[in-house]
Amino acid sequence: MNLLLLEEADFIAADRVVLRDRRLVHMQDVHRAAVGDNLRVGRVGGLMGNAQLLRLESSEAELQVSFDLQPPAKLPLTLLLALPRPKMLRRVLQTVAAMGVPKVVLVNSYRVEKSFWQTPFLEPEAIREQLILGLEQARDTVLPEIVIEKRFKPFVEDRLPAMTASTLGLIGHPGDYPACPRGLDEPVTLAIGPEGGWIPYEVDLLTKAGLQPVQLGARILRVETAVTALLSRLF
Amino acid sequence: MNLLLLEEADFIAADRVVLRDRRLVHMQDVHRAAVGDNLRVGRVGGLMGNAQLLRLESSEAELQVSFDLQPPAKLPLTLLLALPRPKMLRRVLQTVAAMGVPKVVLVNSYRVEKSFWQTPFLEPEAIREQLILGLEQARDTVLPEIVIEKRFKPFVEDRLPAMTASTLGLIGHPGDYPACPRGLDEPVTLAIGPEGGWIPYEVDLLTKAGLQPVQLGARILRVETAVTALLSRLF
Repeated sequence: MNLLLLEEADFIAADRVVLRDRRLVHMQDVHRAAVGDNLRVGRVGGLMGNAQLLRLESSEAELQVSFDLQPPAKLPLTLLLALPRPKMLRRVLQTVAAMGVPKVVLVNSYRVEKSFWQTPFLEPEAIREQLILGLEQARDTVLPEIVIEKRFKPFVEDRLPAMTASTLGLIGHPGDYPACPRGLDEPVTLAIGPEGGWIPYEVDLLTKAGLQPVQLGARILRVETAVTALLSRLF
Repeated sequence: MNLLLLEEADFIAADRVVLRDRRLVHMQDVHRAAVGDNLRVGRVGGLMGNAQLLRLESSEAELQVSFDLQPPAKLPLTLLLALPRPKMLRRVLQTVAAMGVPKVVLVNSYRVEKSFWQTPFLEPEAIREQLILGLEQARDTVLPEIVIEKRFKPFVEDRLPAMTASTLGLIGHPGDYPACPRGLDEPVTLAIGPEGGWIPYEVDLLTKAGLQPVQLGARILRVETAVTALLSRLF
């Protein structure tokens, strides 16, 4: 946790918060904070700033806070991601939040196991929990938007074309394709497939919606690694 | 597992192997392989090729194998990595093997907790197990070399300068430094710090050994994500 993220419910006055949950434990056990210490804080969806620890007890801490700093810019990106297996989903959500992806569409694919859609990790509160962990890691305050699309074809045919309009549309896909471009400034829509990859029918539909396959080389990467590698290369 | 990696002990003849361990279970449960099926195989440290499944029983499988393909090229890189916490270490070892890092030096740092050096995951067999998983994921056969350096100063002063000679030496380090370069062809020595980063004394010593700090932006990434992001950007 490199940033203590504050929720509206934490505020007892405009410049005072009281913490009682895992953030209190983290301050005690990891930061080993003491009264008078200064900590970096951010307001979920708002500015970042500083806090001074006024009172620290075993069950709660009180901090005086001030905010003066914009969170870092997001990437100009919409990430279209075949739903990963539940354990990977949690890590990927942290990663995309940490790397500054503003919008993720979790979409079905032929190679997504049906059981993946049943996971409790897709509940809004569970998604938010992982995103918050990623924001705390990277020092950001703005939650990415997560959209769930359980049906591939209607999403790609009916809604994706509007999403990709005036962006560079790319499909991260191993094979005999152009190399993934580097260091872009323009807005990108990037589709990353499931373990085993998109099937040819899916690549066809994505291509018709305006996306072009690009590759990172012969090595097949895990989804989480592929997400990081593609984003880091693109921007 | 995108490549079935074969050890010398698996061979019962020049073109025959018998498998009984987790690879057998994987063939049965994930690949749902049947007699006559073809599978991609590789020989640890050697060529890749094809296997045909000759016999499949609950306790063992026999395959006929042939080898004709070079594994993918490694990156021109030596990675100097502050020892991560044990759980992260295992994932990082998989990641570096998957991404094609040929040599990793695990080094101490002020912010590496002493207990991390006690983990059984540093045993040679445990390290090898994670590297094999990464090679199987990415389709490579050549194990990276892992060097363990428990003392930072003698390593950086006495051995690092020879390692970095005629390479571009870089330290991935957040702060007011030049941006990490992109798309290099030349050999690189890259140092990545622990959670919380290298301390200034360590950056000084690394700089004297010929490495220069570069940064990826304001976001603080987990070690595993930083490794992937830096490698993907550099090469």
